[in-house]
Amino acid sequence: MTVMTAPAFSDILAARSRLKGEAVLTPAIESEALNERVGGRVLVKPECLQRTGSFKFRGAWNLISQLDERWRQGGVVAFSSGNHAQGVAAAARLRGFPALIVMPADTPSIKQQNTRGYGAEIVTYDRATQSREEIAQQIAAERGATIVPPFEHPEIVAGQGTVGLELAEQAEDRGVKLDAVVVNASGGGLTAGVALAFAERSPGTEVYCAEPEGFDDHRRSLAAGRRVRNEAAAGSICDALLSPEPGEMTFSVNRRLLKGGLVASEDEVRAAMRFAFEKLKLVVEPGGAVALAAVLAGRIPTRGRAIGVVVSGGNVDGRLFAQVLAGT
Amino acid sequence: MTVMTAPAFSDILAARSRLKGEAVLTPAIESEALNERVGGRVLVKPECLQRTGSFKFRGAWNLISQLDERWRQGGVVAFSSGNHAQGVAAAARLRGFPALIVMPADTPSIKQQNTRGYGAEIVTYDRATQSREEIAQQIAAERGATIVPPFEHPEIVAGQGTVGLELAEQAEDRGVKLDAVVVNASGGGLTAGVALAFAERSPGTEVYCAEPEGFDDHRRSLAAGRRVRNEAAAGSICDALLSPEPGEMTFSVNRRLLKGGLVASEDEVRAAMRFAFEKLKLVVEPGGAVALAAVLAGRIPTRGRAIGVVVSGGNVDGRLFAQVLAGT
Repeated sequence: MTVMTAPAFSDILAARSRLKGEAVLTPAIESEALNERVGGRVLVKPECLQRTGSFKFRGAWNLISQLDERWRQGGVVAFSSGNHAQGVAAAARLRGFPALIVMPADTPSIKQQNTRGYGAEIVTYDRATQSREEIAQQIAAERGATIVPPFEHPEIVAGQGTVGLELAEQAEDRGVKLDAVVVNASGGGLTAGVALAFAERSPGTEVYCAEPEGFDDHRRSLAAGRRVRNEAAAGSICDALLSPEPGEMTFSVNRRLLKGGLVASEDEVRAAMRFAFEKLKLVVEPGGAVALAAVLAGRIPTRGRAIGVVVSGGNVDGRLFAQVLAGT
Repeated sequence: MTVMTAPAFSDILAARSRLKGEAVLTPAIESEALNERVGGRVLVKPECLQRTGSFKFRGAWNLISQLDERWRQGGVVAFSSGNHAQGVAAAARLRGFPALIVMPADTPSIKQQNTRGYGAEIVTYDRATQSREEIAQQIAAERGATIVPPFEHPEIVAGQGTVGLELAEQAEDRGVKLDAVVVNASGGGLTAGVALAFAERSPGTEVYCAEPEGFDDHRRSLAAGRRVRNEAAAGSICDALLSPEPGEMTFSVNRRLLKGGLVASEDEVRAAMRFAFEKLKLVVEPGGAVALAAVLAGRIPTRGRAIGVVVSGGNVDGRLFAQVLAGT
C-alpha cells in the first residue's frame, strides 16, 4: 500500500461539517465521584453514546459521505474487529451503498449482530492464521468495491479527530484548561486525530495513548522511535484494541505529537468498567475503558490537574458485562 | 401541611440560572435503533447522567441553594427512597449544610452507600408500618432543620422542570417538533415540572406520565379526577416510583396539563433496561426505565411521530442489573 499523508487541522474542521446532524455531538461529562477519586477534574468524552456505539462512525461517515456516486454499485469493504465494522455499515447504509465486512471469527456476537443489523454482509476469518487485509483486497478487487480502512487514511483520521476538536472546545466553554488528554489506541487513528485537534486548539495539553497490557505496541513504538509489533494477536478482553502494530501514517503523527503511552491491566480495565457503571451510568466496553482505567490507576498525575478521557466505545455483550459487574 | 402553590414558568427559568454550572446539562440522545424500533423519532433525555445519577439533584439544589445562611447549623432533612436522598445530600454538601436522610430500610444498598458518600447521616424506617413524614418532621423540629420535600414544593417542581425546559429547547434546536413527551411519575414533581415547561415552550406537545403496573396512582387519579392511592406500598422492582399517591400540589398541575398516564409491566421495564444497555449504552435503573418501557411497548402511537422520553435515573445495584441483563 502507498503511505498516506496525514490530515491537516482543516480536514478535521471539514469533517465536523460533514458529521453535523449525522453523528452525535457527545457531551463532555464531569462526575463528582470521578473528580474526588483522582483529586482533580476529569472531563469524560463518552463515545459509547455515539451512533453505532463507538467513535468509529465519525471516520467512516467522513470518508464514505465523500465517495463518488460511481462507486455505489461496488459498495464498500472493510476489515474490522467490530466497531469499525458497525461504523462503516451504518455509514454505507446512510449513503445507500452495499457494505461487506471482513471480521475475525472471534468477534463478540453483539458486534456481529449489530453489523448485520445495519444491513452489511459479513465474511469471517481466523485472526491467528489469515490476513484480513488480503481477504478484503481480494474481495474489493472482485467487486469493484472501495476499501474503507480502519485507520490508515487521512479522512478516517480527520473524522476521528472531531472527537478531540469537540472535547477541546467543550473544555474551553467550561473554562477548563486540560493538562492532559488520554485516548485508547489500537491502530492509532483516534489518537492521531485527537492529537492533531489538540495541537491546534489546545497546544499546551499533553496527549497520551492508552493500551491494554501485552498490547502496548504504541507505547513501545514511541519509546523505540519506530513501529514495533505486539507479540500476541489475541487474548485480551479488549477486543477492540488488538491491531498488531501502529499504522504507518498514524504513527508518523503520534510519534510527533504524543507525550507517551499508558498501559492498564485487565483487572484495571474491569474496575474502570465497574466505575463507569456505578458512577458515570455509562456502558463501556473493555477496549473503551482503557484510558479511564489508566487514569484511575494513577498512570499520570491527576491531583489538582484537569484531564480529558475519551471513552471510545460501549459495544459489550451482556454476559461479559454481567461478569465484570460481579467481579468474576 | 399547608397546600403549596404551584410554580410559574418564570420559576423554572430562575431554577435554570441557579443550576447552571452545578447540574449537568444532559444531552438529548437520539438512537437509530430506537427510532427504527418505534418507527418514529425519539429524543431521550438521560438524567441518569445527571449529578448523583438522577434528576433529583436539580430540585434539591434549586431549593437548598436558596436557603438562608441562618439555616446552616440545623441543616436539612429529607425522606426519600433513594434518589432524592442523594440529590439532597449532594446539594447540602455543596452548600456546606449538614443533611439527614430518612430512608426506607429496603432501599437498594447503592443508594444508601452513595447517600453516605455525600456526607449525609441516614435514619432508616419500615416502609410498611412507619410514616416517613412524621419521622422527618420530628427530627426537623428537634434539630431546627429545614425539610426538603421530595415533590410538594414549588422550588422542587421548578428545579425538576428544567429537565423539560432543556428538552423542549434541545428538540427545537434540532428542528424537531415533539408530538408527545413521556415522564416517569412517583410523587409527580418531575412530571409537573416538565408539563409546566412544555405548556410554555411547546404547548402542542402532549405530556404523559408513566408508572409501573400496580403503582399507577397517577393514571387512576387522572381518570378519577381526584387523588387515589396505590394499594401496595412496596413490591415493585421500580423502587424509585413507590410514592403512595400523587402530591396535592403536583396533582393540581398534572390534572390540568397531562394528556394521560401510561403503565409498563415489570417485564417491559426489564426489557427497556436491556434495550438501554444494548442500544443506548446507558445504565438505567428500573424506575428510570418506565417511560422508555411504555414507549417500547407501544402504549402511545409512535409511527411517524416525534416523542421525548425522560430517563430519570441510573442508580441500580450491579447484582440486579446483571440479573436483568441475563433476563432472569
